[in-house]
Amino acid sequence: VFHVQWDMEAAEKGGYDHFMIKEICEQPKAIRDTLKGRLDLEKKKVVLKEIGLDKEAIERIDRIFITACGTAYHAGLVGKYVIERMVQIPVEVDIASEFRYRDPLITENSLVIVISQSGETADTLAALRMAQKKGARVLAITNVVGSSVAREADDVIYTWAGPEIAVASTKAYVTQLIAIYLLSCYLGQLRGTVSGEQLEEIIEALVRLPGQAEAVLKQQTQIREMARRWAKWEDAFFIGRSLDYAVAMEGQLKLKEISYIHAEAYAAGELKHGTLALIVEGVPVIVLATQKEVYEKTISNLQEVKARGAYITAVAFESDQEIGKLVEETIYIPDTISLVAPVLTVIPLQLLAYYAAVERGSDVDKPRNLAKSVTVE
Amino acid sequence: VFHVQWDMEAAEKGGYDHFMIKEICEQPKAIRDTLKGRLDLEKKKVVLKEIGLDKEAIERIDRIFITACGTAYHAGLVGKYVIERMVQIPVEVDIASEFRYRDPLITENSLVIVISQSGETADTLAALRMAQKKGARVLAITNVVGSSVAREADDVIYTWAGPEIAVASTKAYVTQLIAIYLLSCYLGQLRGTVSGEQLEEIIEALVRLPGQAEAVLKQQTQIREMARRWAKWEDAFFIGRSLDYAVAMEGQLKLKEISYIHAEAYAAGELKHGTLALIVEGVPVIVLATQKEVYEKTISNLQEVKARGAYITAVAFESDQEIGKLVEETIYIPDTISLVAPVLTVIPLQLLAYYAAVERGSDVDKPRNLAKSVTVE
Repeated sequence: VFHVQWDMEAAEKGGYDHFMIKEICEQPKAIRDTLKGRLDLEKKKVVLKEIGLDKEAIERIDRIFITACGTAYHAGLVGKYVIERMVQIPVEVDIASEFRYRDPLITENSLVIVISQSGETADTLAALRMAQKKGARVLAITNVVGSSVAREADDVIYTWAGPEIAVASTKAYVTQLIAIYLLSCYLGQLRGTVSGEQLEEIIEALVRLPGQAEAVLKQQTQIREMARRWAKWEDAFFIGRSLDYAVAMEGQLKLKEISYIHAEAYAAGELKHGTLALIVEGVPVIVLATQKEVYEKTISNLQEVKARGAYITAVAFESDQEIGKLVEETIYIPDTISLVAPVLTVIPLQLLAYYAAVERGSDVDKPRNLAKSVTVE
Repeated sequence: VFHVQWDMEAAEKGGYDHFMIKEICEQPKAIRDTLKGRLDLEKKKVVLKEIGLDKEAIERIDRIFITACGTAYHAGLVGKYVIERMVQIPVEVDIASEFRYRDPLITENSLVIVISQSGETADTLAALRMAQKKGARVLAITNVVGSSVAREADDVIYTWAGPEIAVASTKAYVTQLIAIYLLSCYLGQLRGTVSGEQLEEIIEALVRLPGQAEAVLKQQTQIREMARRWAKWEDAFFIGRSLDYAVAMEGQLKLKEISYIHAEAYAAGELKHGTLALIVEGVPVIVLATQKEVYEKTISNLQEVKARGAYITAVAFESDQEIGKLVEETIYIPDTISLVAPVLTVIPLQLLAYYAAVERGSDVDKPRNLAKSVTVE
């Protein structure tokens, strides 16, 4: 008799060392799958047949709330900016565990967007129910078909990321961003707040993302090398402005939750109101600089931390000829429009967190103290 | 000839070692001065003769923005909660360096509140001008008569804190809170969104604050003792919910800017979405637990960090018989209503930061890299 030792988990990892790196590498496919069937490339329009939110319904909406926890909350930070820009309705984004207890001023004219990978996050689900009780329409962005959030929401946009096993969310996050772009285009179309030209520009940028994400993933060896240095540090700061700040928030969380490095993100312009006191010789700072409208301001903040001797890693567009001369190391991402840059910017930060955690010997897929879905309060 | 060596700075410190501790101790007076002439104790009403914002003007306002930097931004976080609660108008609070560049949806029906101790903060001043250009009415809360912000705003509420010399803001912060309470009561009166009973309760609570702040200051010896332990740590976490979270944000900033300890604040319910991975045996966590509506939920978060072995310091009301049994040490503040608790809760955190910084040998009044007023971007 010949016995074969099966390791189901190893089989599921498909040759990767951890689920996390497998899921990071699945992002181009996850983005493609989430876009599939939702773009009319001829008419340059977004098609969201699955949601019932129509022209009449959106005309009544005077305020949008986004609520979520953890990584999904960070996707919501991007959502506020993108929806306000494209749909011209004020958006408030809040942590679900705060939102549900502070008696927010929700009315029947409010749209509440809840974001949850699992669709079972306790605080997010409670926020959904509270919003419905106040008469608001609730739209869910979730990855799990038939989850509680999906069942109870009035509209659902599924992220087609496939099952996410690692506790640290990666492909769910980028597909949540895609769902937000699709929704923003769609609502902008309905309300007439976005021009045909803008729509065309965004749709073209979305279509290019899967291939561009592949290109970022090809820098794994370089990022692994950087991560060796990162693994030795106990503190780190991420700074950026506008959408770069939202991505900085997600980047610091990745590093924290699996490598246990005390990372923190700051709106770059806020640093000198206190935290600059912590920036001394050799302190690692990641500067995200992809947002054209605030690029010069970000560089000026970079100069401030540089003057204090920080060890600076920049994340910037390939076409950026300047930033590389100012910093210790630069990770380049393919050029795209500022609005969708977060999808690419986050990938090197995920890789950096992953390789730093591997280097430090963490249990990457199941970091200490954390659960995949927080189904209790 | 007999020469006397004058030390003007020492003279101005009035016997205190640093301006910061002098200013912390001046808070009861600063609160009293900021309340003076603004409370009608017979009619139980707030009187703000200095502002032109009348019943007609406030009826037109459909949205309020608060924008500020650093400590003043943290006062704004309290402001959002208090104004929404009392005035029933949606409030958005944002860091000035982000706000001014993100093309916020400000209209002629918006009220923009800017908060700045010096009245010269560059980003805050720029936000004020941008808001006025968009047709919004701007109300300033500032400590400096005749400052740029005071001159350019449509309405001004002065905080009568007196000159603040230490870089780390203390008495300016508590008086900014007082200004926010006064404004909220005033607007609530005008709009009829606050009952006579509620007003009476809040006004009585405000009147008690100076004496209660004195009582908190009497715990200096105990807090100094605690700070010896704190001085040895390099990382610390502050957690709380609702208004306690807003105060936690201010508490971590104080510790960061003068003691250089890497402190960070979290909405208590958000911890388990990632940062709990950093909470291991002996990691110091300050738990603020003064908000009645979320008290049980906060205690449940306290239990989570306790289970991981955190060294917990609680800040709670004197009447709290339970929390002291669960934690290593407790700092008690006099009982008051949840809404005004931040004024008292912040004082022990200021003292802790101060004594930890002294213990660590920092240049308390002029921490490295920081300026008192950030008049450049």
